[in-house]
Amino acid sequence: MPTTISVALGDRSYEIEISRGNLRGIAAFIQQHRPCSHAIVITDSNVGPLFAQPINQSLSAAGIRTDLLTVPAGETSKCVAQAEQLWNELAARNADRKTVVIAVGGGVIGDLAGFIAATYARGLSFIQIPTSLLAQVDSSVGGKVGINLPAAKNIVGAFWQPVGVLIDLDVLQTLPEREFRSGLAEVVKYGVIMDAEFFNYLEQHADAIGRRDSDRLEHIVAQSCRLKALVVADDEREETGRRAILNYGHTFCHAIEQVSGYGQFLHGEAVAIGMICASRLAEDLGYIDAAMTQRQQQLLKQLGLPVAVPALDENALLTAMQHDKKTENGKLRFVLPRQMGHVEVISGVEAERVRKALRINRN
Amino acid sequence: MPTTISVALGDRSYEIEISRGNLRGIAAFIQQHRPCSHAIVITDSNVGPLFAQPINQSLSAAGIRTDLLTVPAGETSKCVAQAEQLWNELAARNADRKTVVIAVGGGVIGDLAGFIAATYARGLSFIQIPTSLLAQVDSSVGGKVGINLPAAKNIVGAFWQPVGVLIDLDVLQTLPEREFRSGLAEVVKYGVIMDAEFFNYLEQHADAIGRRDSDRLEHIVAQSCRLKALVVADDEREETGRRAILNYGHTFCHAIEQVSGYGQFLHGEAVAIGMICASRLAEDLGYIDAAMTQRQQQLLKQLGLPVAVPALDENALLTAMQHDKKTENGKLRFVLPRQMGHVEVISGVEAERVRKALRINRN
Repeated sequence: MPTTISVALGDRSYEIEISRGNLRGIAAFIQQHRPCSHAIVITDSNVGPLFAQPINQSLSAAGIRTDLLTVPAGETSKCVAQAEQLWNELAARNADRKTVVIAVGGGVIGDLAGFIAATYARGLSFIQIPTSLLAQVDSSVGGKVGINLPAAKNIVGAFWQPVGVLIDLDVLQTLPEREFRSGLAEVVKYGVIMDAEFFNYLEQHADAIGRRDSDRLEHIVAQSCRLKALVVADDEREETGRRAILNYGHTFCHAIEQVSGYGQFLHGEAVAIGMICASRLAEDLGYIDAAMTQRQQQLLKQLGLPVAVPALDENALLTAMQHDKKTENGKLRFVLPRQMGHVEVISGVEAERVRKALRINRN
Repeated sequence: MPTTISVALGDRSYEIEISRGNLRGIAAFIQQHRPCSHAIVITDSNVGPLFAQPINQSLSAAGIRTDLLTVPAGETSKCVAQAEQLWNELAARNADRKTVVIAVGGGVIGDLAGFIAATYARGLSFIQIPTSLLAQVDSSVGGKVGINLPAAKNIVGAFWQPVGVLIDLDVLQTLPEREFRSGLAEVVKYGVIMDAEFFNYLEQHADAIGRRDSDRLEHIVAQSCRLKALVVADDEREETGRRAILNYGHTFCHAIEQVSGYGQFLHGEAVAIGMICASRLAEDLGYIDAAMTQRQQQLLKQLGLPVAVPALDENALLTAMQHDKKTENGKLRFVLPRQMGHVEVISGVEAERVRKALRINRN
C-alpha cells in the first residue's frame, strides 16, 4: 500500500508516492498524473544500468515512446555544456510540449533534468524518481532545479515543480553504505528544525534505520517528505524566509565542502558536521544548553556520520561563509536551534563566535 | 502624461508605461516597480551606443550600481554560448537575488536578457525597455523569453514576466525606415484578430502613422499593448488556446522566413505576407469574402509592407509548416479570420488548400 503525500502549491500541487517496487509501475504513475505518449528518461552512468530497463519496460508496455539519455555520473554533469547537449538531444528526438521528462537518479540528475524540463519549449512536465536517500528526502521535493557555473553552484536554475515524485524504497537497498548514511543527515535535520517527536523516533530506532529496516525506512522517508512539503508549500520561492530553516547546518556545510575541495566529504557528511557547528554556535549565544548539541551529536554518530570539524584553514572557512549565496552584504546569517524541533534565522553573528564554534568542535 | 497599461496576472501583474523621453527617467520607474541597489543593463552593439548613456546616468544619479553588458547585434546572439557568457558575467559582477536585469533593445535582447533573468539565481526581476516598434507592440509584453538551438528557434526558454515595461516613443524616431514599417505588421494583426475599430483607425491614419506622427504612434502602441495584455492575462502559458490567436499569419510567416533563409525578410514583412496567405485560405474555406482580404492587403501596402508570396519552393514551405512548433502530429493548424476583429483556430486543413493560398498570392 503506497503512502501518498501531497505538496500543496495551488495549480502546481503534486503528489509524492512512496512504496516498494513501484518503480516498475512508472507507466501507471505517469498515466495517473500526466498522461503522455512520449517520455524522455534522463539518468546517469551509475544509476541507468540498474533501473533504466524496468522503467523502459513499463513505459513501452503502456505504449509510451521512450528515449533514454544517459549522462556521466557526478556533479560535473551539472554544467552548461551538458545542458546544451541534452537540449539538442531533446530537439533531435522531437520532444514537444506534451513530452514528459523523467529524472532517474540522485540529486545531480534531478537538478539537471529538472532544469532541462523547466527550459525546453518553455517548460515540460517532469517526474522525479529519486534513487538516493538524499534525493528522496530532500532534493526531489520542492522544485529547485539548476546547474553550476565555475563561479558558483546551482547559480543557473529555476523553481520548477515536478508533476509527481515516485519513491521506490527498494532502491535504497542498493546504495553503497557511505552514501546511504550520508542521506540520513538531512533526515536528522528535519527532526531538529521542526519535529521533536520525529527526532525521538530516530533516536529510538537508530540501529534499525542503520540496518535499512524497510518499515523504518518507509517512516523516515515519508515523514521527511511530509515536513519538507509543509515548508515548500509555505514558501515555494524562498520569499517569506520560511524555507530558510531547511538550511540548518548548511552555511558551515557549504564552507567545509568548498574549502576541503568537493568530493572530500559527501554532502550529508558535511551537513552533519555543519549542524553540530551551528548547534555549538547557538550554545555560545545562550540559545540552547549543551545537552541539545550532545543529543544531535550522539544520534549522528550512531547513524555513522562524522561530527568533528576537519583540520581546515579557519580563515578560508570564514571567507567561504561570507560569500555564501544566502549571505547578504557579507553579514553572517545562521539557522540556529532554540529548542528541539524549533530553529530561527539569526543575522549579524560576529565572526569571532563563528570561529569559536569551528574550534570547539575541531577533531 | 504617460499612458499606463496593466497586465493582469495575479501576483505577476505589471505595468507598461508609455511616454516620450521617459527612458531618461528609468531610475524613477525602477524605484516605483522594484527598488534595487544593483542593476545589470543588457543591450546590443547597435542600441547600446544610442541609449546606454542616458540610462546609466539616470541609474547612477539614483545611486544604483549599474553594470552594462553589450552583446553583438543580431539573432545569432540568442544562443547558448552567449547565454553562458552572460551568466558568467553576472556571477563576476556579484549579481544576487536583489539585482534587477534591464533589457534595452529589440526582440533579440528582450528574449535573451529575459532568459538570463529567468534562470540566474532561479529568477531575477527584469525590466523591459523595448527600442524597436516590434518589441514595443509585441515581444516585450507577455513574458516569453528564450534562446535558439541550431534545430529550432526559441526552443529553450521560459515564461518569465517582467516587473515593468518602459516604452519611450521617442526611440521610434531613430529607427531605420524598413525596420519601423516592419513593426507595423503586428499592429495591423491586432486589428484583424480582435479589434475592428482599431483596424478602422489604422486605415484612417495610415499616412500619418507612416510619417511617425507622435500622437498616432502613441495610440497604436498603447492599443496594441492593451490588446496583447488582454490575451496574455487570459492565457499566460498557452494552455487554453486563447493565446494562439496572436499567431495569425505566423504559420505561413515562419515557413517563409525559414525557406527564404533568415535575414531575407524582416519578421514583420513575413508576418504581412503570412496574414494575406491566411486570409486567402479563409476565403477558400468560405469563412470570409474577398473584400476582407483586400482591406488587409490595401492597408499593409499603404504602410509599406509586402503582401505577395515570394518565389519559393512550395514543397519546402509545406514541409516547414508541418514542422512548426505549434503543429501537432504534422496536422496543419491555422488561425483564420471569420470577420474583421475575430479569428478562430482551425485544425486539419488539407495541404492542397494551403498550396492554393500560397499560389493565388504569388508575385
